[in-house]
Amino acid sequence: MSAGSNKALVIFSGGQDSTTCLIKAIQDYGVSSVQAITFIYGQRHDIEIACAQKICSLLGVNQKIVSLNEIQQVTDNALINKKLEIKQDKDHNYPNTFVAGRNALFLLYAAIYAQQQSIQNIVIGVSEADYSGYPDCRAEFITSMNKTLNLAMDESFIIHTPLIHLTKDQVWALADNLGYLEFVNQYSHTCYLGIPGGCGTCPSCILRNQGLEKYLKSKK
Amino acid sequence: MSAGSNKALVIFSGGQDSTTCLIKAIQDYGVSSVQAITFIYGQRHDIEIACAQKICSLLGVNQKIVSLNEIQQVTDNALINKKLEIKQDKDHNYPNTFVAGRNALFLLYAAIYAQQQSIQNIVIGVSEADYSGYPDCRAEFITSMNKTLNLAMDESFIIHTPLIHLTKDQVWALADNLGYLEFVNQYSHTCYLGIPGGCGTCPSCILRNQGLEKYLKSKK
Repeated sequence: MSAGSNKALVIFSGGQDSTTCLIKAIQDYGVSSVQAITFIYGQRHDIEIACAQKICSLLGVNQKIVSLNEIQQVTDNALINKKLEIKQDKDHNYPNTFVAGRNALFLLYAAIYAQQQSIQNIVIGVSEADYSGYPDCRAEFITSMNKTLNLAMDESFIIHTPLIHLTKDQVWALADNLGYLEFVNQYSHTCYLGIPGGCGTCPSCILRNQGLEKYLKSKK
Repeated sequence: MSAGSNKALVIFSGGQDSTTCLIKAIQDYGVSSVQAITFIYGQRHDIEIACAQKICSLLGVNQKIVSLNEIQQVTDNALINKKLEIKQDKDHNYPNTFVAGRNALFLLYAAIYAQQQSIQNIVIGVSEADYSGYPDCRAEFITSMNKTLNLAMDESFIIHTPLIHLTKDQVWALADNLGYLEFVNQYSHTCYLGIPGGCGTCPSCILRNQGLEKYLKSKK
């Protein structure tokens, strides 16, 4: 698959983190060598999909949209099921918005698609610094998943996690260094409740806003 | 999840291998502690599904049927696409019936469902002895996948592969030892072409028939 070593597939939700990853990948690989893959799985915040399409269009990036609604046959949680209130899971150290196995599913589907497209590099915007307790945002998981995918598919994928050690303010700093802070702030969408511009009160909005505030303060 | 340590979820296609695994699991855990999970993904041999339902009904096992048709958005191969002729893949050491990442997908969905059901044990009938070159039938892959799932979902699943080192004749011997050789032979379905009773000429039928012949000869 050496032909694919200069190509990258970015797992792209339209949120702050993956938008920053997408812009970084475009600068690293060149826009014609980058594809975005966006998953739809009945999430509350399907406004993200519209944002994701708009961002890809503005950046001139090829986007593959993939439905993962079948996941609802085997799981149930507050990010998908609008009848459930978002709260901390009592059995685990993370909110009940956690779709168990979600990043594993994203990475597996991305790898299957990457193989079809002869792409070796897969980029995902997980961070263990601000991971809200989600087990599938840890570097240890990513390393293990990378090995598993290569064994499963007889490939040599490289999973890149440019944000893995970054806190939210550092992700804003990265966007700024790439020259896209305003772009990310204007076009990306993060809110769990799917409110345009952000509700400002869900865990995701709070992380994003506090990060931006901290970064802007540090710049002064 | 200690409550689930006496429960097992068997990945069950209705073929010879997974039927043998299901019977073994019933004898190991008790029928009321076993569930079967059957995946439908547009396979050529959808007669398997009918066989799988019949077998679960005869054995009195609870069966969960899960559609994975969305996989067709990112892959294309001869097991799903009836327009493609079944042959050896020119780029890899396995037939073009290989659905890349299939066992990873089965195991991931099974794990997500097992978590919902508080089941710790997941059984899959892969064998690296007769694996036809499929990379995701190797013990090394299973071990890595097990670790990855536990990291992804903060769980302690145990993936069991009772057939991993068995050749097809040894799988028949196991069915016989369990007292179910006739049952497996009569009700399970293996043929890639979906022909009732088996076409006798596809790679899967040949493996099955040669194995049975070898085992029966060894018994004499």
